[in-house]
Parts: sequence; structure tokens; C-alpha cells
Amino acid sequence: MTDPLFVPPTRRQLLTMIGKAGGAAALYQAMTVFGHAAESQFNGPPKLSGARKGSTVLVLGAGVAGMLAAYELTKAGYNVQILEFQDRTGGRNYSVRGGDTINELGSTQTVQFAPGNYLNPGPWRIPYHHRTVLHYCKELGVELEHFAQLNFNAMTHRKDAYGGKPQRFRDLYVDYKGHVAELLGKSLNAGALDTTVTAEDKAKLLEAMRDWGVLDKNMAYTKSVKVGEQRGWDRPPGGGVNGAPIPNEVGTLSDTLSTQVWKEIGFYTEEVMQATMFQPKGGMDHIGKAFTAKVGHLVRLGTRVTKIAQDTKGVTVDWTDAKTGAAGQSKADWLVCTIPATILGQLDIQVSTAKKAAIRSLPYGNSVKIGLEMKRRFWETDYAIYGGHSFTDQDISLISYPTGNWFGDGPAVLLGAYPFGIGAYRLAGMTPEKRIAAALDQGSVFHPAEYKSEYLSGASVAWSRMPWILGCCATWTEESRAAHYQDLVSLDGRIVLAGEHCSYYGCWQEGALLSSIDAITRLHQAASAA
Amino acid sequence: MTDPLFVPPTRRQLLTMIGKAGGAAALYQAMTVFGHAAESQFNGPPKLSGARKGSTVLVLGAGVAGMLAAYELTKAGYNVQILEFQDRTGGRNYSVRGGDTINELGSTQTVQFAPGNYLNPGPWRIPYHHRTVLHYCKELGVELEHFAQLNFNAMTHRKDAYGGKPQRFRDLYVDYKGHVAELLGKSLNAGALDTTVTAEDKAKLLEAMRDWGVLDKNMAYTKSVKVGEQRGWDRPPGGGVNGAPIPNEVGTLSDTLSTQVWKEIGFYTEEVMQATMFQPKGGMDHIGKAFTAKVGHLVRLGTRVTKIAQDTKGVTVDWTDAKTGAAGQSKADWLVCTIPATILGQLDIQVSTAKKAAIRSLPYGNSVKIGLEMKRRFWETDYAIYGGHSFTDQDISLISYPTGNWFGDGPAVLLGAYPFGIGAYRLAGMTPEKRIAAALDQGSVFHPAEYKSEYLSGASVAWSRMPWILGCCATWTEESRAAHYQDLVSLDGRIVLAGEHCSYYGCWQEGALLSSIDAITRLHQAASAA
Repeated sequence: MTDPLFVPPTRRQLLTMIGKAGGAAALYQAMTVFGHAAESQFNGPPKLSGARKGSTVLVLGAGVAGMLAAYELTKAGYNVQILEFQDRTGGRNYSVRGGDTINELGSTQTVQFAPGNYLNPGPWRIPYHHRTVLHYCKELGVELEHFAQLNFNAMTHRKDAYGGKPQRFRDLYVDYKGHVAELLGKSLNAGALDTTVTAEDKAKLLEAMRDWGVLDKNMAYTKSVKVGEQRGWDRPPGGGVNGAPIPNEVGTLSDTLSTQVWKEIGFYTEEVMQATMFQPKGGMDHIGKAFTAKVGHLVRLGTRVTKIAQDTKGVTVDWTDAKTGAAGQSKADWLVCTIPATILGQLDIQVSTAKKAAIRSLPYGNSVKIGLEMKRRFWETDYAIYGGHSFTDQDISLISYPTGNWFGDGPAVLLGAYPFGIGAYRLAGMTPEKRIAAALDQGSVFHPAEYKSEYLSGASVAWSRMPWILGCCATWTEESRAAHYQDLVSLDGRIVLAGEHCSYYGCWQEGALLSSIDAITRLHQAASAA
Repeated sequence: MTDPLFVPPTRRQLLTMIGKAGGAAALYQAMTVFGHAAESQFNGPPKLSGARKGSTVLVLGAGVAGMLAAYELTKAGYNVQILEFQDRTGGRNYSVRGGDTINELGSTQTVQFAPGNYLNPGPWRIPYHHRTVLHYCKELGVELEHFAQLNFNAMTHRKDAYGGKPQRFRDLYVDYKGHVAELLGKSLNAGALDTTVTAEDKAKLLEAMRDWGVLDKNMAYTKSVKVGEQRGWDRPPGGGVNGAPIPNEVGTLSDTLSTQVWKEIGFYTEEVMQATMFQPKGGMDHIGKAFTAKVGHLVRLGTRVTKIAQDTKGVTVDWTDAKTGAAGQSKADWLVCTIPATILGQLDIQVSTAKKAAIRSLPYGNSVKIGLEMKRRFWETDYAIYGGHSFTDQDISLISYPTGNWFGDGPAVLLGAYPFGIGAYRLAGMTPEKRIAAALDQGSVFHPAEYKSEYLSGASVAWSRMPWILGCCATWTEESRAAHYQDLVSLDGRIVLAGEHCSYYGCWQEGALLSSIDAITRLHQAASAA
């Protein structure tokens, strides 16, 4: 069995070894093979087996990290119990539907959405390289569908750009690359880069700028049918006698820059945001439900942990029942704790000073999601927007159009806000009713004629006010990683932590699952050696 | 009723009028309204009504243009008959499945695909702004699903780049913008553009280059965690003790340029290629079948038109029955002819010399599509590629990964070739067996370990060898448009032509449908006036 503490060589180290041993052909073959392995640290589910007969593990938290731990440890032969504070499993893997209740500190909402409609307050999209999530979806039978991320026809709004009038992302994107190409072309032609690039590369760059920027024969970015074929039209191409298209005017350099559209372009090229993306059909909570189908019988719901102790023989967890207030205690040989650091830092836990410091020093970000149910999909019928996001520099940060059931009739839910940072804190500080009003006001900039008149009902989740987490997810900095990360994730006696906060994929389910696999692999090794 | 020959004012003309009449508020409101109208020339189905009692229209060709004409003219009260050369309706709207026969000049193939699998030899994707296609899909009950177009994780191959080793599009794209940003940043900092851009724009451009290009503090594009977050990793982020990611090396400027990746980037920004795109679930022919459900009873299949004549009272079409060879004749008051110009140019047709010249001077491009059924979806499981295209400068031009049934087990069909131009002519010149062999050889560059060993069966369509069209679609040039387009689409006595070749959306179903709407609108006006 592989030592779970073994640090695998990097791809480059391995390739160097293979190259020395087998020459160029072996190296090429290996590069091809590794080319598709380097997408993810996931190498299949953990290979645990041969748990000591009767060994017990207590898992705190029935989110996806906790449930994966319970699922795999049970398969390996451990007796597992999960304690969960809430009256449901899933944690942040969560969808709200009509009839559901949202309990924040200081407010309660009852969701009014029509049957079939939902909001994912937590995770909502899955990148193609999050192989752990994809693996368990396949294994547990969760049906995935496409999630539309990049939509050229969605809009961008900046209060100080274009007089506050939203622009199609398509138009801004094409203008942006047109102007960048024109300016770099000018520099190249003026010889400004002759000491930097070779003559051959200069020639290729000029060709690239002309082609990519859709420049005219004078290397200028200007209105033309060719530009229209990317940017759009005053009159689009058609059929018959009036078929000829009329291109529209391009945006100026200054107007284009005022929109800061490069931020959106950059957003879509982040690896975690790149197309192709997925979502579980019908709501993200189908993943939590699929894990629950496997380990739900091991979960004690409504259980508030108050104290976590350990000695050389095992762990002892004190708790109270959330409904009755009755005190209880659970014992086990080992403990996997997925309680968010925001909550864990307030508990009495018997771990090293360094781990305590790591737990207590880890800040969580905030975010707010607001779902707005509209009578009809006006963004599809009236604006030709199918999925994707319209970004704004208002507090709501964006509105996002649903993927799934495109072209459908009847009410649909769009995401009316998803800010981090100051916008999130401002919206979190409002009552749920005022959040909806703000979201309707701000979102109207994109759909002024429809946004308020088509509105039916709304629901919001401000993560900083959710009592079981008090934040959205861990926000490590480079400095805090260096100071505390290894202390947080280390096995401490009989206790190991897991969750997105114990990973380099913070705020993603992939991080929660990879962290859980790593934690239980090390726990199993220690349990086997003990 | 609106005069169908009326040329509507351009958006700008209209906005100017509105601005003069109603001031800024009215102008803004109108811009908002038109902002989403300018996607398409489609303004709803044609409003035809009040056909003269007993008026008859003959339609030649049961492709989507011909069937739309029959559908709408029948609704308006005309008696319509369609003559179709093939033994099926749909024309290029076409999908082949297991058991189907493909009859080219000189060869016959019987498709071997497993049940549920298919190849769309003709149209296969629908842009969000092709509102006519989308309208009729909705009206006729055709279920659409997403079509994955841009996939950052697909590959690019150039024989002379990276030693012929394919690169992930993601890597090349990030390298490309990184180098462009670095070079423009250098030019700006050297003052090379100080007479071109304002100081304010220069500052914004520098910020944009740093952000969009993911440049370091020295404005250089180089390996970093930040770049890794877009480009990928030697070791990706993970969970627990080995969670820290290790970024990989970036490509050099010369290597990046040698891939000509800007062509792919530009491809994805063409309006007709921009995300979001759609496909009919289960095969493109569901559109043709939906029209057939409405007008199939009006179609005479297997009918080879030999002569088209007209006088002041009506049209007369001579034909022979393809099976029996028996001659026949059909008469009607009016004629809508959707026969491709390649075939029509060989027929005896009684129209003006100018229209004949237009028909005969219109060249058609060629393309070849090859479907390869593989035992399993290795591109998904082993390469994390879900939809999208891997491009190459070999004859096959690309391979395209299917959208739909992602994560499914069992055989799946990928598109193993889709060239235009010289690659298409070379593949069209081969027997179907040799095409498959070539496609397997060339496509192996992307998936060397799997491509041949997982192969099950293949099917190909070379459009230049399809006897009923002898080409793929019309390829107008700016010059030929100027010389012939209006002659081609004009109503000539009692005859009007329709189809993608009679539109500015050549090679797209949207063009065929818009052309048909325009043609029957003018025909109805003439018939009403006659």
C-alpha cells in the first residue's frame, strides 16, 4: 500500500526520470498520458480496506465532506456515526424550493417558488476538472446537465460607462480585442518592439492582430461587415430582397475601457470558470441527497456539539439535542470534524495550540444569493439570453440566468444577486424584504420594462447570518496559508479536520471532497498503525 | 397591411426620428426596446391571410425552406403541393442512424451506429440569434438542448507547432493573451503610444493588460500561481497536506504564435459561433420531421423535376417519377422553387436571362462530415473533454465531441472530420472506407492511445457527391452578390426562389427560413394584387 504521507513527484520530476530512463519516445508517451491526468489531484476513491474489527469513527457535520468520509469509512469496515447540527443533511450543498423555510439570524422566510423551481444558495456549478465531484455524481447516480457560464449575449453594466446603459458582452469583447489589436499593431509597425520580438514573430503578430482584432487593411478597428459578423448589426443578415446586413458602430477605446470589460473576459478564463461546466439537474442538493441515501441512517440530526475531547484511547464529544435541550455524549476511536472554523473556533476542542490558532485565525468570506421568480422567461424571449451572467458594479454584482428548461413556459427563477465583499455585507444587513426590493431596483438596469412587472416572489440567503456557519467559505491568504494551513490539516492525536477550508480549493465542493479523502486516508493509516 | 416590399428604416434612422420627436427619455426607451430586437430580421411568422379562394402554389423541394413555405401558405388559404426529388423530406436537415443508407455518386454506405446514436451531416448547431429557427422549434414542438461550442479543455494541433504535439486550447489561449498583454504593456510603458492614447486611457490600458494578461509586478507574463489559476498546473490544487498547487511552465511567444491560436479564438467570437448555442435533442432532423408532420401529406416524394415553365396564368412543371420513370406534370398559379442552384442551373426553367445567369453563376462549397462511433466516451473519462472541438491543420480540420448524454456508458459518435476547402475535396475523393481510415489516422494525434482501439464503425457524407445537391451550400462573394443577388431573389412572373442560397445567411437554416418567409410574403402580395 502506498504511504499516504508520500508526496508524489511533480509531473516534471517524473517526466525527467522517464526521459532519462526511456528516451524521447517513452517521454512523449508519458507526457500524453499525464497530459490528461494533471486536471485534478483525484486519483479515484480512497483505497481503504481492512479496518480493525469494531473500530469506530465519529464524524461531525453531514455536509458533503462529512458524508463522503462516512461513506468511504463504512465501506472500509469502520462503524461510523455522524452528528449534524441542522435538521437536514447536505450543509452548504443545498437547494431551496417552494414551501422551504430559510432561517437566518433575525429572520425567517418561507419560499414561494412554483413547483420545480429552486435556488442553490451555496454551490451551483461544477467545473469539468473537478473530477472528485464528477466521480461521486456518477457513482451515486446524480444526473448532471450543462451549466451555461459564458454567454456572449449577456450584458455588462458599469455606472460610469456608456451613461449607465448596459452593453452586450459580445459588443464590448469584440471592441476590446479590436482596440488592443489596433494598438499593438501600431506599436509593432512603429518598430517599438523590434528589439523585443524577432522579425518572424513580428510578422506573425501583425497577422494575428489583423485577424483576431478584425482590423481593416490599414490595421484600424472600425465599423465593417467583418466586424459586424462578430459584434452584431444595425440590421442583421436576412433572407430575400432586404437580406443585406448593416453593421453597427463600434465603441471607442475610451468607452470600451470605461466598462472594465477585461475583468469579465478574465473571469471566464479562470480555470474554475471555464466552459464546459455542469450542474445537477433539478438542484445542487441532489448530490447531498445521493450521499444521504448511502449514509443518512448514520446521521443524528439536530445535535449541537459543545465539547470535543480526546485521550490516547479515543474521542469524546459532548452535545445537546437542539429540540429537547437534553445533553448527550458520543464516543469513538477516531474523529473527523467538518464543522466550519467559524463555529469550531467557539467550541472547547482538545487539540494542539497550533491547531487551535489555525482554526481561530481563519476568516470566512460572506456572500448573498437572491432568487427572483419571474412570471415568464422574458430574458430568453425578449433578449435572446439563455444562461450566463450580466455583471454590474452595483451591490448585486450580477444577475444570472437559469440553465435548464430553456424555452419553457411558466415561471422561472433567476439569480438576482451574488455579491462577495461590500455588496454582500450591505445586502446581508437588510431584511429579506428590503434585499428583494434592492435586487429588483438594481437588476432593472438590464431589463427595465420587465423586471418589476414580471416579478412573482423572491428568496435570499445571507451566509454571514446563517447560524450554522456565519459565513460563506474560508478565505485564506498566502500569508495565513504559510502560517496555519499545515497545522489545520494535520492529524492531531485521534482528530482530523476536513472540509473546503482544509483544501486549496476553498469555496468549492471539490476542495471539501478532496480534503475528506486526504483526511480519512491519513486517519486510516494511523488507525491501521495504532 | 404593411407593404412587404417596404424597406424598414435602420435602427439608427428610427432612433433619430424617435429622438427628434420624443426627446431623450423616449429615445432611451426605444433603444432598450430595439436593443433586443436587432438580433434577427425575424419579426414573427409571416402575416399572410386572405388567399384568393382556390389559389394554388407548387413548391419544389421539401427542405425546411420549402416546407415552411407550404406550412404558412396553407395556413393563409392556398392549396399547396410539394414535389421532392428524394425519397424523404428534410433536405440538408438530415440525421443518419443505424440502418440508414447514404447514397453518394459512386458509393453506398449502410450506417452501423448503435440505437440512439446519430450523425448530423448537414446543419448541427443553432445560434441564439437565429430566432426563426427557434420560433418554429417552439411552435412545432421540437425539443432543443444546449450545444457545447467553446470548450477550453479541447485541443489545438498544428503540424509545425510544439513538435506536432496537441496543446490544450486553454493553455494556448492564456499564453496568447499573456504575451499580447506583455507586449502592449511594454509599448505603453515605452511611450510608443503616447500620441495615440490619452494619459487616462493609458493608465486603464496598463491596468487591463496586467489583469487580463495575468502579468507579474514587472508586467511580464511568466509562471505563477495566478497564471496557473487560468492555465492549469503541474500539480492542481487539492485537499489536505499535499493540497498546494504547482503551476506549470508557460509557453513562449514563438511557440504560442506558431499555433495560430488566434484563429480559434476568433472563431469562437463569430456571432454565429458564440455561446449559447443549441441543437435539437436526438438529431437535427427533428426539425424537418416536425415540419413534415404539418405538411408531409402535401409532398410527392421521388419526383425529378425536368422543366419549369410559366405564362401569365400559371406555372407548369414537368417531372418524372424516380422509381417508375413515368412522366408527369403539375400545374399551379404560383411556384416557390427551393431546388439548389447547382441542380436548378441544369434544368430548363422559364425565367429572365438575368435570373438564369444568377442561378448558373452561383458556386457551392463542399464539405465532408465523418461520424466515428467509439466504444466509450474516452474523451470525457480520460481527457475531461465534454463537447467542443479540437482543431488541426490536417485534412479533417477538427474533431468534435458530442453534446448530449454526457457521462453516459456505451458507444458514442464523435464527429471525426468537418473540413471545407482542400481537405474536403481530398476526403471527398476517397472511398468511404478510405475516408474513415484517414480520419482515424489524423484524429489519433489527439487521442493516440484510444482512437483506433475504441473505434467501432463510421459513416461519412461528402456533399459534393450527394446527387441531389452536388455541394454543401452557396458560397457568395461580395462581387457575385453585387452582380446577381437581387436577380436571384426577385419575383419573376409567377416564380420565386427560396433557400439558404437566397439569403445573407448562407449555409444556415436561418437563411433558408428567412428567405422562405420573404419569398412567400412577396408572392402573397403579388397574388393578392393579381
